[in-house]
Amino acid sequence: MSNEITIPSPADFHVHVRQGKMCELVTPQVAKGGVKTAYVMPNLVPPLTSTEAVLSYKSELERIDPSVQWLMTLYLHPDVTPEEIRKAAKAGISGVKSYPRGVTTNSNSGIEDYGVYYPVFKAMEEEGMVLNLHGEVPSDPEKNISILNAEIHFLTHLRKLAKDFPNLRIVLEHATTSNAIETVKELPNNVGCTITAHHLYLTIDEVAPQPHHFCKPLAKEPKDRKSLQDIIKSGNSKFFLGSDSAPHPISSKIPNLLNNDKEIGLSISACAAGVYTSPILIPLVATLLESFNALDQLENFVSNNGRNFYNIPAKKGDELKLRRIGENENKGIVKNTFKSEQVEGLEVVPFWLGKKLNWEIV
Amino acid sequence: MSNEITIPSPADFHVHVRQGKMCELVTPQVAKGGVKTAYVMPNLVPPLTSTEAVLSYKSELERIDPSVQWLMTLYLHPDVTPEEIRKAAKAGISGVKSYPRGVTTNSNSGIEDYGVYYPVFKAMEEEGMVLNLHGEVPSDPEKNISILNAEIHFLTHLRKLAKDFPNLRIVLEHATTSNAIETVKELPNNVGCTITAHHLYLTIDEVAPQPHHFCKPLAKEPKDRKSLQDIIKSGNSKFFLGSDSAPHPISSKIPNLLNNDKEIGLSISACAAGVYTSPILIPLVATLLESFNALDQLENFVSNNGRNFYNIPAKKGDELKLRRIGENENKGIVKNTFKSEQVEGLEVVPFWLGKKLNWEIV
Repeated sequence: MSNEITIPSPADFHVHVRQGKMCELVTPQVAKGGVKTAYVMPNLVPPLTSTEAVLSYKSELERIDPSVQWLMTLYLHPDVTPEEIRKAAKAGISGVKSYPRGVTTNSNSGIEDYGVYYPVFKAMEEEGMVLNLHGEVPSDPEKNISILNAEIHFLTHLRKLAKDFPNLRIVLEHATTSNAIETVKELPNNVGCTITAHHLYLTIDEVAPQPHHFCKPLAKEPKDRKSLQDIIKSGNSKFFLGSDSAPHPISSKIPNLLNNDKEIGLSISACAAGVYTSPILIPLVATLLESFNALDQLENFVSNNGRNFYNIPAKKGDELKLRRIGENENKGIVKNTFKSEQVEGLEVVPFWLGKKLNWEIV
Repeated sequence: MSNEITIPSPADFHVHVRQGKMCELVTPQVAKGGVKTAYVMPNLVPPLTSTEAVLSYKSELERIDPSVQWLMTLYLHPDVTPEEIRKAAKAGISGVKSYPRGVTTNSNSGIEDYGVYYPVFKAMEEEGMVLNLHGEVPSDPEKNISILNAEIHFLTHLRKLAKDFPNLRIVLEHATTSNAIETVKELPNNVGCTITAHHLYLTIDEVAPQPHHFCKPLAKEPKDRKSLQDIIKSGNSKFFLGSDSAPHPISSKIPNLLNNDKEIGLSISACAAGVYTSPILIPLVATLLESFNALDQLENFVSNNGRNFYNIPAKKGDELKLRRIGENENKGIVKNTFKSEQVEGLEVVPFWLGKKLNWEIV
């Protein structure tokens, strides 16, 4: 049992670094979590639907932390035309992210509307851009579609897209079900799949009583978690780390009594979906992989597989060294929330708070 | 479409009225919700495992609100012997409640240990006492048992108990799955089943982002909710109201940052399971039943079916009259939390806060 591991330049192929003061707070944590290359989500307010907006956001991230390689994405939207795709490709933008409700900004037609984006996907295929899919369909009680099976219902769309665009690289983001894992396994090699750190640990039992574990897609059953663990253990090169690290202010993660006017009285807010793992990401992944005897796959999962899929080679000499924290060593406990020094009350609760990591970055 | 309904003496066959200051706060709300007969759960600290303890608790409830008929239960536990059952029956105690982990106070063997209670069940059968089952097995990731299928896995135990004790009245409490509904339908008439108000409304989609909707058993898929609604609509007499109204202080229903010593740092608390419906119960049930066209079953669901199963007739003249609140009437919105006047910070958030009820008690 080795007490040190050195892996090539880790990459996180799905991260939210937000905007404004939250961006200032969380962006420096990406590198602190051991990540050298970060694939950045475009779901800002407003969403990033033009090359200019993406490049401006990229400059902002480079200003905050020039040490990280920031890979950028557009938000799939009617503004993203085939012409915009060619422009984006020339500007070095890596991919386009599709959200289930994102296509409904001007309609209620939801995910079924992928058809209207076929000219866009064709242009992406030609330009070598990647399509990133939030793989859930909207809930629909009449059809018994809920957040428990929204991902499974999405897999039909994934299969169709993979068939219709055999040369388009497609990533199913943050898979949470055994059905999703099996589907990606069966599809050709143009389809990849990210897995988060938190879905390697959580099941519905840990999510229901804890809003800080609430995210979308929801963590599912133990058999689903085992399926995610097993595919990593198997070394299948289609599967790689995308943390979906998604910070929210603590005030948005808990239900708040809202004081409305006298006529309406009180009401209560819902909790935001998202789990924040960036500051501890690679040590957390090492700790989790070791818990299910897959530590030998750490390098493939966090460094090689995703870089090979995206064709983003690691820089020579850009390794990350991890060191095992001894059981009796007084180290490795995640002790603190992340607080803005500039904005009162801007505080983010990290995943694993109060728990011990078994690995640290040297 | 009638604007007034009069039903015989409503009964809630599953309610938690707690102890101490919380008991003082919530007990008077039972009658305010329109309930005349309340079947009281014994899961206090310590649990009620002796006739004396139950009778003392009953006196306390009668002191706080003598207008309600309080039906009492024992907590299934090694202290509850066949002798204790005979004593309890003589003292007018109605039933015995079994909790999944309740049998494990002195063991880790869980629900499989029902066998050791067979002499107790035999005595209950002879004395005409009712067995109330919290119908979930403990989670077990190795067997893929989670809070999503814990109820389904319990149904084997229900079937076996019903077969082994054909003359024991058994109630499956707070059913949440179509499997549970189908199982109770198929079993002989010694088996009844309670359904809560909140499970007629919630699915997993409304629970995951809202700790105030988190309860056990967890609300499941839309098809499960529909199964609960349909069985009420069908008028099946085995199914009746048991609210499982379960108040918690607001501070226990949200995750709190816990400040541990410096070495451990911060950690975060989990949210308590329970939905509080007592203060609005019968108007809420009327509103929900009407939403799925089952208002004609209100009397059977809240008055007749449970009373017939338990053999607790309604008192003559003890009717409840409800009146429809017009769409444009400025009434019926649940506006307030429930606060103790004696204990600072003892505040309970009711279900339906900020939403409108379509019926009120006259």
